[in-house]
Amino acid sequence: MPTRSKIIYTFTDEAPALATYSLLPIVEAFAASADIAVETSDISLAGRILANFADHLDADKRVEDSLAALAELTMQPDANIVKLPNISASVPQLKAAIAELQALGYNVPNYPEDPQTDAEKEIRARYGKVLGSAVNPVLREGNSDRRAPAAVKAYARKHPHSMGKWSKASQSHADYMRGGDFFSSEKSITMEKAGDVRLEFVGKDGQVQVKKQLSLLEGEVLDGMFMSCKKLRDFFEDTLQDCKETGVMWSLHVKATMMKISHPIVFGHAVSVYYKDVFDKYGKLFDELGVNPNNGISSVYDKIKSLPASQQEEILHDIHEVYSHRPEMAMVDSVKGITNLHIPSDVIVDASMPAMIRNSGQMWGKDGKQKDTKAVMPESTYARIYQEMINFCKTNGAFDPVTMGSVPNVGLMAQQAEEYGSHDKTFEMTADGTMRVVLADGTVLMQHEVEKGDIWRACQTKDAPIRDWVKLAVTRARQSNTPAIFWLDPERAHDRELQKKVEKYLKEHDLSGLDISIMGYNEAIRVSMERMIRGRDTISVTGNVLRDYLTDLFPIMELGTSAKMLSIVPLMAGGGMYETGAGGSAPKHVQQLIEENHLRWDSLGEFLALAVSLEETGIKTNNAKAKLLGKTLDAATGKLLDNNKSPSRKTGELDNRGSHFYLAMYWAQELAAQTEDLELQARFAPLAKTLTENEATIVAELNAAQGKPVDIGGYYRSNPELTSKVMRPSQTFNNALAALR
Amino acid sequence: MPTRSKIIYTFTDEAPALATYSLLPIVEAFAASADIAVETSDISLAGRILANFADHLDADKRVEDSLAALAELTMQPDANIVKLPNISASVPQLKAAIAELQALGYNVPNYPEDPQTDAEKEIRARYGKVLGSAVNPVLREGNSDRRAPAAVKAYARKHPHSMGKWSKASQSHADYMRGGDFFSSEKSITMEKAGDVRLEFVGKDGQVQVKKQLSLLEGEVLDGMFMSCKKLRDFFEDTLQDCKETGVMWSLHVKATMMKISHPIVFGHAVSVYYKDVFDKYGKLFDELGVNPNNGISSVYDKIKSLPASQQEEILHDIHEVYSHRPEMAMVDSVKGITNLHIPSDVIVDASMPAMIRNSGQMWGKDGKQKDTKAVMPESTYARIYQEMINFCKTNGAFDPVTMGSVPNVGLMAQQAEEYGSHDKTFEMTADGTMRVVLADGTVLMQHEVEKGDIWRACQTKDAPIRDWVKLAVTRARQSNTPAIFWLDPERAHDRELQKKVEKYLKEHDLSGLDISIMGYNEAIRVSMERMIRGRDTISVTGNVLRDYLTDLFPIMELGTSAKMLSIVPLMAGGGMYETGAGGSAPKHVQQLIEENHLRWDSLGEFLALAVSLEETGIKTNNAKAKLLGKTLDAATGKLLDNNKSPSRKTGELDNRGSHFYLAMYWAQELAAQTEDLELQARFAPLAKTLTENEATIVAELNAAQGKPVDIGGYYRSNPELTSKVMRPSQTFNNALAALR
Repeated sequence: MPTRSKIIYTFTDEAPALATYSLLPIVEAFAASADIAVETSDISLAGRILANFADHLDADKRVEDSLAALAELTMQPDANIVKLPNISASVPQLKAAIAELQALGYNVPNYPEDPQTDAEKEIRARYGKVLGSAVNPVLREGNSDRRAPAAVKAYARKHPHSMGKWSKASQSHADYMRGGDFFSSEKSITMEKAGDVRLEFVGKDGQVQVKKQLSLLEGEVLDGMFMSCKKLRDFFEDTLQDCKETGVMWSLHVKATMMKISHPIVFGHAVSVYYKDVFDKYGKLFDELGVNPNNGISSVYDKIKSLPASQQEEILHDIHEVYSHRPEMAMVDSVKGITNLHIPSDVIVDASMPAMIRNSGQMWGKDGKQKDTKAVMPESTYARIYQEMINFCKTNGAFDPVTMGSVPNVGLMAQQAEEYGSHDKTFEMTADGTMRVVLADGTVLMQHEVEKGDIWRACQTKDAPIRDWVKLAVTRARQSNTPAIFWLDPERAHDRELQKKVEKYLKEHDLSGLDISIMGYNEAIRVSMERMIRGRDTISVTGNVLRDYLTDLFPIMELGTSAKMLSIVPLMAGGGMYETGAGGSAPKHVQQLIEENHLRWDSLGEFLALAVSLEETGIKTNNAKAKLLGKTLDAATGKLLDNNKSPSRKTGELDNRGSHFYLAMYWAQELAAQTEDLELQARFAPLAKTLTENEATIVAELNAAQGKPVDIGGYYRSNPELTSKVMRPSQTFNNALAALR
Repeated sequence: MPTRSKIIYTFTDEAPALATYSLLPIVEAFAASADIAVETSDISLAGRILANFADHLDADKRVEDSLAALAELTMQPDANIVKLPNISASVPQLKAAIAELQALGYNVPNYPEDPQTDAEKEIRARYGKVLGSAVNPVLREGNSDRRAPAAVKAYARKHPHSMGKWSKASQSHADYMRGGDFFSSEKSITMEKAGDVRLEFVGKDGQVQVKKQLSLLEGEVLDGMFMSCKKLRDFFEDTLQDCKETGVMWSLHVKATMMKISHPIVFGHAVSVYYKDVFDKYGKLFDELGVNPNNGISSVYDKIKSLPASQQEEILHDIHEVYSHRPEMAMVDSVKGITNLHIPSDVIVDASMPAMIRNSGQMWGKDGKQKDTKAVMPESTYARIYQEMINFCKTNGAFDPVTMGSVPNVGLMAQQAEEYGSHDKTFEMTADGTMRVVLADGTVLMQHEVEKGDIWRACQTKDAPIRDWVKLAVTRARQSNTPAIFWLDPERAHDRELQKKVEKYLKEHDLSGLDISIMGYNEAIRVSMERMIRGRDTISVTGNVLRDYLTDLFPIMELGTSAKMLSIVPLMAGGGMYETGAGGSAPKHVQQLIEENHLRWDSLGEFLALAVSLEETGIKTNNAKAKLLGKTLDAATGKLLDNNKSPSRKTGELDNRGSHFYLAMYWAQELAAQTEDLELQARFAPLAKTLTENEATIVAELNAAQGKPVDIGGYYRSNPELTSKVMRPSQTFNNALAALR
């Protein structure tokens, strides 16, 4: 017998956490048959708060720090983690969670908005570790392997999602800076040996201000680059004039959520250029009021509320006037009058651009109609790939989900590689001068002449993750017998450094029979698309940002969504993490459950991740039963998709729980039907029989529960017993599962 | 002393022939100093008529068959031919030439329009050899090497021609068939051994009709392909509907002059689809009148002239009605109301598409304004390169002549390779059935199911020219130290056959240090353009049609014209032919000379060709003086361009003769200034001195001659003495040249 192995199933927040109450008992029951334990690890927002304030809690209320334990586990070769989506908490969410925990008797401190004392500052610092994207950077001790699972691809081919027709005469296009942006100023070096560097600003007066110190490893790649504020503003003005002349709608696409420091500033310039007349006229007043264009034009609406009504009206009138001489702007919500410049987080380039391309290259105008659009994406580094795809669609028409091939991704991500969004190395210049990167011995590694308002940033990429990434690319190319393209632009300083390493590390592998190449972004996406429309697959091997962009772009064309992608993080230490559900943790789903007892969350991502998790366990521990469980789970998922047993959005119809029942039934049927392992066959035949015979009863019991409000005893930390009762309402199903044990 | 070598300078027609009277004495005088004889060879239309009817002429009027002699010469390793543009005679031109010759006392027979007797048929057959493109196929016993000479490129960089700005929101595009065209049906085989094949049609009744017999050589590539009439007509209708919906102007781009059989038919379908209502309504009447849409809508205007006025008016009214529901059409001449569908030879794709792309992607509407255009080019084989360039310009803006690199061409052309235009292997199907290519032993090499109206064609490419073409590409890559790309599309049957040969023949050469690759058309043009905008050169190594298209497309972007290209035909037997003046033989120039004694013909092409001709003579005969003459001629040409001493279009200003004077002066100055060859220095110093001192006098003499009508005693065969007198009006210049001898 193989040693008893363990799958860690993360317990997170909101809809995925609710679904876990229903799905986990099924998974545990099936996995036990291969002697695999499925354990949960609580990395929910509430759990993280409690773990960080254990010293404030009564002994019986304390919880272990699961995230820290999980981080440890990622360093172990036998790690096998199924990672569900969790809340990346904003301050309002954090405060709500604190209040809920306090009400439940957990003595956690309030969040100090404006900490004064050392104690308050200490508390604030602890909460800082809980805020935002606190989980992924800690757990992602590996690179990324994302692909469309065969069952999902087959489903999309059979039931193709809608694709807007493209006109050859479309005026839509991507527009980006042709100089003055990060791309054109990027410099990059590779550390010959480990060492400390200072990022420092030298003023015109010679004064040196150290912005940041970094300890770099041998072989680590460090980049420096900046975006010119002047050129950025000129660029925005040019795009607006161009739209005015051509009648094409104007739309801004940035990623203020990921590029936490740089993109809100870029967004703010867009706001203050578009509404230039208003910002010129009321500049002083706005400063006094604390208007911040980086928060969108909504900041003006918010802050002027304190003014007399007549003054408010005058400002609103002037804002309205702007629209008469500026081009039409794309709307986030034309009914409510919410434009792309309202708040910075509404339009996120990696989601908005695929949506536009899928929608005939059009976005929505203020009249609610689709229109050709200038997609303004100042930073040219990645924007060019969208222009390439737009040109491709103009020439070849919309992609066809029925015939198109796939573009899986192998992404460099481990140990925070290429984290351009990292706020700790991005700075908005407060004066003219020089930004430079200096070694401890005073050697200047690179420098840029900058002006006030310019955005300068550095970026680190360690050597070990690059080496692992190359290995993963070769492994995936071999396993899937698919050509792989490293997307490295010969005109980018950073990519030239990476290319040297890629060429070096490729030599460590047997490449015989593989088709592995290195191309600039335009060429890479073009070749991938040419292959794709001919039904051929091509692995994109990319850096971190392209990973993020492409794993939305191609899946949205191929599958209609990126949520159905298989997302694996083969950990560098040898273990594996299987991420699920790119769609977030879905607060609206919780609301529907509480009000109508219908959970529309689709656990497809969990099914897919579990299948790989089981298969990997089988391979690594030489456990044939585990491999068979994985294989049959995949088949069951295919059947589920094929028979359309995914959750409906409508209360009263099949929901998350019903889809779990069907998964269990199909899975049991697959195991009962196979003859590879007679023990498993014998074990699951009775369950298959029971579930098949009781299908109507169970579905009726599950659906009967719907339609009424339910109480689960909390939002951020619901009551386990109440929630379990709500999520497992079919006694017939529960009994059948219990009989398996 | 080297042996006396010989340069053959062709004597042709119209403007180039007139210019020869002025230029040749200069060239003879200079060449003599290197012991080189410059001999003329009369391949003018008149000369060809006389040569073909020597038996009809009095003994003293007979001329030798220079073209036949020249064809012989191309097979000799020491051939050195400067080939000026000649008339490709239409029937009206032929008849005018005959009349002129008869008036001059040459007893040539009349052209029998409708030959009845055997004698008439024999005469008609002889004239057939004189008609059309009778010279190039005979002389082109080599492949093509076309490039922008350094002096011309330098001039364009210093004095950039105008380039229309491109809008990123441009709606212009190329539209082509996505199936049913030659591209999608192409089949191709390589003959394992020499053999005869039949091109035959098998009717539905099994009846076999042999359309053509061909004797093929070992290794010869034979293609068969067809265009579906139905799909072509559907395509035209779709493009018209699309333009109607999008408001983009409709424009047809074919090459009815080169693709002599297929493209007039394609053009005819465009006419009868656009004017469908009219052709439907008057179909029977038009048939009776002999209206042929392949001759354009003008055919309707012509043929209805025999009808009563009221009936004519009705038809014209109905034609007018068509415009109200069809999209706007691009105009050849908006003032005169001449559309792109008027006659088939007005819009020639290889000239019209570069013009459109240079002109912001726009063509002219009926109101005389520029508009975004759908460029309709049914055959997708080559049309895609224009779409690629259009997308490129939308993304990157118009090309910049100041900074852009060059795309020289090495074209497969020898022995009529890839002559898709060849009328003897193109057939319009008169019934449904099968077209097949059958070996003498009955083996079917390929076949196509065809329908009535489909256009089927075969195409031959011999092996020796392909091998020579590969060699020429390697030679040019080596000589110019420039990357070379073979444009071979992996999706084209013909190109796959060629690729095998290219890969085989490349092995015959030392490729060390060279960058030679093979790419599909889209990739090839894209890579070339990406390099071009970065100032880098890339040799395009292409088949015959792409040679024709690209040597207009890139030169028009780079130089503003293709007439300034150096066009060399390195003959397979070892000799060289140097072609000049892609701009034709310019009948309008002759008219201006006769009326105002101003010849605006620019002999730049002759200057460039002569320099290479001299250089090659020098290399091949080890004649250092000849090499020096070539080098100094190039320098003189550069100086002439730089000092803007090219002919003006305006009477009274410097014309062709004046530019020849400056060339002579600069050339003499260069020779006088060099110290490589003291003998030549000594010989040319006096001439340089004389010309320099008398510059004002000579220019005054040359210009004084202008402004009055002159008599040169004929158009197709002008009187040599009269013409020489007209073309050499400066006694001072003539005396100076004479003194050199």
